[in-house]
Amino acid sequence: MSRYLSSKLASLTPYTPGEQPQDLQYVKLNTNESPFPPSKKALEYAAEHQRSLNLYPDPTCEELVRRIAMFYRVTKEEVMLTNGSDEALFFSFLAYADETHPAVFADITYGFYPVFAEINRVPYEEVPLREDLSLKIEDYDDRHGLIVIANPNAPTGIALSMREIDLLLQRHPDDVVVVDEAYVDFGAESCIQLTKKHDNLLVVQTFSKSRSMAGARLGFVIGDRRLIRDLNTVRYSFNPYNINSMTMSLAMGTMLDGNYTLANCLTIEKNREYTVKALRELGFEMTDSKANFLFARHKEIEGGSLYRALKEKGVLVRHFDKERISDYNRITIGTKEQMDCLLQAIREILAETER
Amino acid sequence: MSRYLSSKLASLTPYTPGEQPQDLQYVKLNTNESPFPPSKKALEYAAEHQRSLNLYPDPTCEELVRRIAMFYRVTKEEVMLTNGSDEALFFSFLAYADETHPAVFADITYGFYPVFAEINRVPYEEVPLREDLSLKIEDYDDRHGLIVIANPNAPTGIALSMREIDLLLQRHPDDVVVVDEAYVDFGAESCIQLTKKHDNLLVVQTFSKSRSMAGARLGFVIGDRRLIRDLNTVRYSFNPYNINSMTMSLAMGTMLDGNYTLANCLTIEKNREYTVKALRELGFEMTDSKANFLFARHKEIEGGSLYRALKEKGVLVRHFDKERISDYNRITIGTKEQMDCLLQAIREILAETER
Repeated sequence: MSRYLSSKLASLTPYTPGEQPQDLQYVKLNTNESPFPPSKKALEYAAEHQRSLNLYPDPTCEELVRRIAMFYRVTKEEVMLTNGSDEALFFSFLAYADETHPAVFADITYGFYPVFAEINRVPYEEVPLREDLSLKIEDYDDRHGLIVIANPNAPTGIALSMREIDLLLQRHPDDVVVVDEAYVDFGAESCIQLTKKHDNLLVVQTFSKSRSMAGARLGFVIGDRRLIRDLNTVRYSFNPYNINSMTMSLAMGTMLDGNYTLANCLTIEKNREYTVKALRELGFEMTDSKANFLFARHKEIEGGSLYRALKEKGVLVRHFDKERISDYNRITIGTKEQMDCLLQAIREILAETER
Repeated sequence: MSRYLSSKLASLTPYTPGEQPQDLQYVKLNTNESPFPPSKKALEYAAEHQRSLNLYPDPTCEELVRRIAMFYRVTKEEVMLTNGSDEALFFSFLAYADETHPAVFADITYGFYPVFAEINRVPYEEVPLREDLSLKIEDYDDRHGLIVIANPNAPTGIALSMREIDLLLQRHPDDVVVVDEAYVDFGAESCIQLTKKHDNLLVVQTFSKSRSMAGARLGFVIGDRRLIRDLNTVRYSFNPYNINSMTMSLAMGTMLDGNYTLANCLTIEKNREYTVKALRELGFEMTDSKANFLFARHKEIEGGSLYRALKEKGVLVRHFDKERISDYNRITIGTKEQMDCLLQAIREILAETER
């Protein structure tokens, strides 16, 4: 760092994103992207409706906000768009966490949460997951502040039901609860409808996973209109034109082709069940994932070793060198062909290990 | 605001962007956009080189960073890309301003600077421009902290020379100086080359103006590699995938078609001179603008009245209801046809005023 960097940031440790090799030579199962391209109809729509790029985008994002509101049966005052869902999370930490309202989240969850706390210089508390990596809402009973729950959780894939989130909210009427639903579309229950019942709930979603738009960067947040007004105050104080016109057009097209998204999600679920079964047969243990990834360990081979052996064979998965979970690897669910490559590589590695 | 919003943000007043009417019925001279579309070659390049949108963009932005570094004759370690230049400014305030390093900027300048200070909860000092709206670097002699200079300044359009910026830097070896060059390509001198001489200089630029890409959102910042490393630490702690793949491809194409950008800038300069002459003949006084806008007042008609009268006639300009400058309007330089529409509308308004 330079000698000019403010001392307040001296201990900042940035988030480490998963590897993004640019040569595309790998079977890439490490960053939970969709293996499917955006819908053709979306690309066509975007090409036809592209606003003049020399002009600023609509800072209110009116058209797309309306479309998302309609889809999720909320009003446009209850929706805000962000440059990827990370921006929605950052804004939430900025708006609702402070010295007297620590951020509260699981000890094993999305690795960006502690970084958001640090860059906003707010305290945070980590609530341990149970031994089986499950999250119990009663463990949050004595915690107050900005409660952030990834649902399904990452990297475990384990999901809470809407009923459990409802109970959590009932127990925390004075805390803002953020439910990060980045992975909700692959078989878990969204709690967007609970925003009508609880004025302290923010639901964050993304177009990066189920909607095949990771490269276009779009997230959104749904909640009570007063919360959304707060977040828009933050957005207009930081980057009012945070969403570019091309992304908005592409997302409009994607929303108009919902069947494509749905079919892709169902394929991912099918491929997940296929992979779970095959990995079990190979001796792996896994959490009950409702996401587009698995969290798997094998008693014969340490997590880091498996990660490296797979990488050598051209298959990228994600390993976290972190207490409690270093035995595991997080494996994105891709196409059936990709999963067969993974399984073949694992069979070879296990055979080599046995020798 | 909600009852949950952190008290630290209670007094936050967001930036008000210029009107962005979505019906396009106006001659739009209010937000300093380019009247020219992005180059055809850029659009072609973007279409050909579009990376798969289902995958995350390259977080290092390697290819585009290299291209920009090559163009400005710096190294890739001295360049960072942002989601519009506002994000670069926000990151700079976050990294270099704090309780003991106030942000320091002119009393009349880009209206976002005080908002960036407020959202980062850092103190700021406004240094008055001189009576003629010029900025004198000696007025900053006793000010220390994060010094932010828009050059050319907005909304005045008045530019400092590279020599003056150099002198400012010599007088402030322990302060980070940010030079916001959003409007530099229309006849002012860039001080990017001074980053080789001063390790405390950050130069911020944008693709929104001269490069006709306001809708695609791209800014960048150039400075000593240690400063850029600081800013990347902030970026990776906030939104490592802040630049989408479509914008990167479009920008690569734009950089490869430099003659188009250059020709557009020269046309804007020519149209500016044409408009200056015509407005003078109509009795307007103007600052000596080196930007793609004029800052003009007329002794017969108050600034707000002229703004409203022009809007009624379908011409949007920008009026700031602010002390010292409420007599003025900021008028974007567009095509010759757009400027003729403006001039015709003004002639009619002045004729009506005389009656």
